[in-house]
Amino acid sequence: MSKGEKTRQAILDYAVGLASQVGLEGLTIGGLAKDLNLSKSGLFAHFQSKEVLQIQVLSWAEERFVEKVVRPVLGHPAGESRIRALFEYWSKWGLSNTSYLGGCIFLAATVELDDKPGPVRDHLVTLQKEWIESIKRISKSAVEAGFFKEETDHASFAQQLWGIFLSLNFYSRLLKDPQAQSRSRQAFENLILKFRSVKRIKK
Amino acid sequence: MSKGEKTRQAILDYAVGLASQVGLEGLTIGGLAKDLNLSKSGLFAHFQSKEVLQIQVLSWAEERFVEKVVRPVLGHPAGESRIRALFEYWSKWGLSNTSYLGGCIFLAATVELDDKPGPVRDHLVTLQKEWIESIKRISKSAVEAGFFKEETDHASFAQQLWGIFLSLNFYSRLLKDPQAQSRSRQAFENLILKFRSVKRIKK
Repeated sequence: MSKGEKTRQAILDYAVGLASQVGLEGLTIGGLAKDLNLSKSGLFAHFQSKEVLQIQVLSWAEERFVEKVVRPVLGHPAGESRIRALFEYWSKWGLSNTSYLGGCIFLAATVELDDKPGPVRDHLVTLQKEWIESIKRISKSAVEAGFFKEETDHASFAQQLWGIFLSLNFYSRLLKDPQAQSRSRQAFENLILKFRSVKRIKK
Repeated sequence: MSKGEKTRQAILDYAVGLASQVGLEGLTIGGLAKDLNLSKSGLFAHFQSKEVLQIQVLSWAEERFVEKVVRPVLGHPAGESRIRALFEYWSKWGLSNTSYLGGCIFLAATVELDDKPGPVRDHLVTLQKEWIESIKRISKSAVEAGFFKEETDHASFAQQLWGIFLSLNFYSRLLKDPQAQSRSRQAFENLILKFRSVKRIKK
């Protein structure tokens, strides 16, 4: 890895942590230069504009998400094991240091950008849709493995799992409710009970 | 209503709409004075500080929420009718103009404030906890009316309903998914099926 690439990654890593707390709009090239003791012109050479910086911050966070959530989940065999892993790794992501200090940056960016049209929002939508497609593929592989019903509505499974993830984040991060995790686990058990193959339950 | 009170309300109404788009941190007394063509000293007389302004903005939004969601829901008889009304009015709140241009301001404030300790965050937590207590009371009244099971876990019902609301907002506002509403309705039907009294279903 070149020295320039190492610097770029160190900047992005710091910027993602900061954005998870102050939002993507809170990032400025001048502010980052000051925090990291780098020259403003050096940062401009890496990122050209605030918009490019914001897009690269989201992509960098996505790489971490793939590393901390997507890949470990896909390392589990299709079926019950992978479906359960999906819940475990994803719920950890938002709550622990596997993500960033300010919690899930995608969640923060969603609220920040949902009504701000432009390339940064478009990039966020692309990333979120890719994740939804991954969840749907995991759900399909659970049907193929005989764990989920043939008639499973994969999009519905994905949206309901999002709901469990979002409410867990809300209850834990804002309300600091110590029961939030056990309740979200219960909701997840209900969700898989709804989708799992009856044949398999009867066995 | 005094002229001063009318002015205060007009300012708050504008400020809530703005905060739903730019966040509570995006509100400044100077900016509001300029937008509304009022004197900065006049605005200071109403709100003293940015913090007081943010707290009053949240309270003002809460009054609208009570008017547009809580009161209409409680106007329905306890049981199935009130439980269904809870879903209808709440899902409308986040998505339509019954709330504000930038969507649910409480949701935006949650992401913004979850890691910013202080009186504004404390106020938001109080408001959100009050709403959760209201949902739990509505769930209890559904047990009394014979619609929900005796053993209903009211906190669990509330957290799962939050999940449906949050994922609906995410899918609709960020992803513009036209199926989001029908999927959230399906998730809601599953939720009440899980909690409703078996005796009643068998009748």
